Amino acid sequence: MNNDDMNILQNHTGIYTDYYQLTMAQGYFLTGRAGTPSCFEYFFRENPFKGGYTIFAGMSDVLELIEEFRFGDDDLRYLRDQGFKNPFLEYLKAFKIRATIHSAREGEVVFPLEPLVRVEGSIIEAQLVETLLLNLLNFESLIATKASRIRLAAGNRRVIDFGLRRAQGLGGIHATKAAFIGGIDATSNVFTAFHYDFAVSGTQAHSWVQSFGDELTAFRKFAEIYPDKCVLVVDTYNTLKSGVPNAILVAKGLEQKGHRLLAIRLDSGDLAYLSKHARAMLDEANLHYVKIVVSNQLDEYVIRSLLVEQESPIDVFGVGTRLITGQATTALDGVYKLSMSDNIPRLKFSENYTKLTLPGIKKIVRFINGEGNFYADAIALEDESSIENIFHPFFPEQHSSLKHCTPEMVLQMVMENGKTILTHSAQESASYARERMNHLALEHKRFEYPHIYKVGITPNLMSLRAKLVDEFQRQFEK
Amino acid sequence: MNNDDMNILQNHTGIYTDYYQLTMAQGYFLTGRAGTPSCFEYFFRENPFKGGYTIFAGMSDVLELIEEFRFGDDDLRYLRDQGFKNPFLEYLKAFKIRATIHSAREGEVVFPLEPLVRVEGSIIEAQLVETLLLNLLNFESLIATKASRIRLAAGNRRVIDFGLRRAQGLGGIHATKAAFIGGIDATSNVFTAFHYDFAVSGTQAHSWVQSFGDELTAFRKFAEIYPDKCVLVVDTYNTLKSGVPNAILVAKGLEQKGHRLLAIRLDSGDLAYLSKHARAMLDEANLHYVKIVVSNQLDEYVIRSLLVEQESPIDVFGVGTRLITGQATTALDGVYKLSMSDNIPRLKFSENYTKLTLPGIKKIVRFINGEGNFYADAIALEDESSIENIFHPFFPEQHSSLKHCTPEMVLQMVMENGKTILTHSAQESASYARERMNHLALEHKRFEYPHIYKVGITPNLMSLRAKLVDEFQRQFEK
Repeated sequence: MNNDDMNILQNHTGIYTDYYQLTMAQGYFLTGRAGTPSCFEYFFRENPFKGGYTIFAGMSDVLELIEEFRFGDDDLRYLRDQGFKNPFLEYLKAFKIRATIHSAREGEVVFPLEPLVRVEGSIIEAQLVETLLLNLLNFESLIATKASRIRLAAGNRRVIDFGLRRAQGLGGIHATKAAFIGGIDATSNVFTAFHYDFAVSGTQAHSWVQSFGDELTAFRKFAEIYPDKCVLVVDTYNTLKSGVPNAILVAKGLEQKGHRLLAIRLDSGDLAYLSKHARAMLDEANLHYVKIVVSNQLDEYVIRSLLVEQESPIDVFGVGTRLITGQATTALDGVYKLSMSDNIPRLKFSENYTKLTLPGIKKIVRFINGEGNFYADAIALEDESSIENIFHPFFPEQHSSLKHCTPEMVLQMVMENGKTILTHSAQESASYARERMNHLALEHKRFEYPHIYKVGITPNLMSLRAKLVDEFQRQFEK
Repeated sequence: MNNDDMNILQNHTGIYTDYYQLTMAQGYFLTGRAGTPSCFEYFFRENPFKGGYTIFAGMSDVLELIEEFRFGDDDLRYLRDQGFKNPFLEYLKAFKIRATIHSAREGEVVFPLEPLVRVEGSIIEAQLVETLLLNLLNFESLIATKASRIRLAAGNRRVIDFGLRRAQGLGGIHATKAAFIGGIDATSNVFTAFHYDFAVSGTQAHSWVQSFGDELTAFRKFAEIYPDKCVLVVDTYNTLKSGVPNAILVAKGLEQKGHRLLAIRLDSGDLAYLSKHARAMLDEANLHYVKIVVSNQLDEYVIRSLLVEQESPIDVFGVGTRLITGQATTALDGVYKLSMSDNIPRLKFSENYTKLTLPGIKKIVRFINGEGNFYADAIALEDESSIENIFHPFFPEQHSSLKHCTPEMVLQMVMENGKTILTHSAQESASYARERMNHLALEHKRFEYPHIYKVGITPNLMSLRAKLVDEFQRQFEK
């Protein structure tokens, strides 16, 4: 599949946006400020799923769309009909993004408040990419994180995405990609598997069995066609009285021809109860090698319960709705805020102190402890070196010394003057996520009340923010 | 925008599916059953949001994709690499959907268990459209229903979709369309507004204000460019001490030039408190005509509380995340089940009695009472006439007489032998939804514990199901 095929927005990347981006862009243009140098930063305020970390994803898709960013002739006609003015439309006709972007790597383990992406360029270009950047980063990071949690619960058992039918429309396309980055093994979604070269998986539905009327015939016919890839869905009529006994007959038939039944699939009923009984029946028939696949409303909590509490003999999990829609969070709360324009650090003030933004052009420095684990992250101004202490962003009484740790830079330049210079395949990002998760201590991975990972700001950044806050407050006291 | 532009799956409609649809299709093909006449039906089991009804949406998009359904050369090469056999790949190369489809109209008020879509055709074609049909109908119906609830809460106040940045990736495209069908007035999503000719809306973000440093200058510059379309976001620094006073100065300036400030927008803080104080300040300045727009984590519950409990003077609601992702349900649980093949009614049996499917080719008959309201729906076999009684699908002790009511047919033929013969624009479907909602009694619209609308099955359908269940049970007792 070539890239053109996947550019689902085709010539309309420029209008995959919120309308106010365009009214503001025209405003900047008409006030002679189109070229004002600016810096916007992407960050989120809360880990999804009440968890202790987030897996960053979506950047390679964002870079692809930014490189192709343009306004087609139809788009420009449409904007003219909305009242946009000719000089601005002429400007848009030739418009290209020439921004420089720093970003965390896809698959990175990241935390609230960190400026994960930094877009530097003219205020118009930095503004015009906001919506598509938020749309993809918020969603892919949400799903990569959900997949990572499901991976934690499933241990080294195989996890397959079955979600396309319950995905939020075309959202399923990138959801499956993000789920791969987060740690699933295969998918039923052919479109995404094709494009990203993922392992694809699936065998038969209940309708196959129903259409034959007789379950044993349905199983036998399927096994004849797929003797080495045969997974039988055993709950169409009655799992233990009909499905499993018929699957055993078919497995024995396959054995006689030198093949092996791969697995049976349970898709309803109590999966703990049924998997134990099905396992016993298979073992009794000397079919120890036949695996058990389960599906039906699974998520990290159900999988953990099935494995840890219930000790269910399950080999493969098929996960649908709750993975592909990121239940129960549904959207990462990522925002994109101006932190610098005209070389002046900018702040969004707020009556709610924890919603103050962090001004200036910033970086993230990760500190690694003696065991090689992540100890804390510092949000620092870009030009700071030798960071020794960080302070809690809102409660400066809490602070940490970083002297015993080794620093690492989290952001890298990924686009320079509108050209992508660093991007990764989904496979590379998936490996990276797996590797990085090994350095995150267990207590941050807990589903319930995880230990909060330390993210602090440097004394310099704290002073800059205090100075700007002070300026604003004096203004309101006038 | 022409249709090609919106065919975001381009030549790959055939692989926007679950892999098992293809393994089954090859199975039907190789067992000589490709042409087996079949009927599949789409239904869901539970209204989303614990509500009392669902707005059906998505069918026009499904029809468009089914008409364009095909396997591109790349797709076929990919499937060959996965081990599919040449004769089957040749068959797919020339494959077209020739099915006949009956469907409820988009915008219809519908209920659990009703067979809303009926796909009749060869088992291969009916099977191959399953995933895309579920993907779009489940999602669009979810969002149309959410929008309808938000519309109920907002009364006749204006509701605008601001959700694209928090949408589930490209899911935002159809989400906005579905939200229109459900009852919103405008959207910030330019791509979707362009394609479907929706009212588009948006003015300025905090970054506009921040980039000027001085809020009053930022407001004035904006008002100069958009003197008749000016909405000012007033919470960048301090809503009541800075934003609203500056907006009042700008409004007075606009008045002197013969213009009127349209509105101010509150995007943070306590919206009830701030809207009351802002309203008082505007009124004090004789700016009664300046409207108040609010946004920030709104949904039907928050809007109801703001209006009914808090009596907030709000004119326009901008709704984002919770609309566009259908919080807190995230996916309608719609399924697509074989109800007939080889002219034999088919059943999916289940250990859970409420998950038994309804066999045979069926229709939905709606009964209208003397006040013109929806009284009850009957699920009947296609050839039944004169329906006088219905029974609860699982508790036959509950039954209703329909003698005093007028019947209406809910399903219409929308596709005949693969050609769309009836489809509606989003605008038509939105009007239809509005009109139909007028016939749904208030008690079914309640957010908390709504009165359950009566959906029953006819005695004939009940007998058919009982006969098939009985056959299965006797089989397992052997």
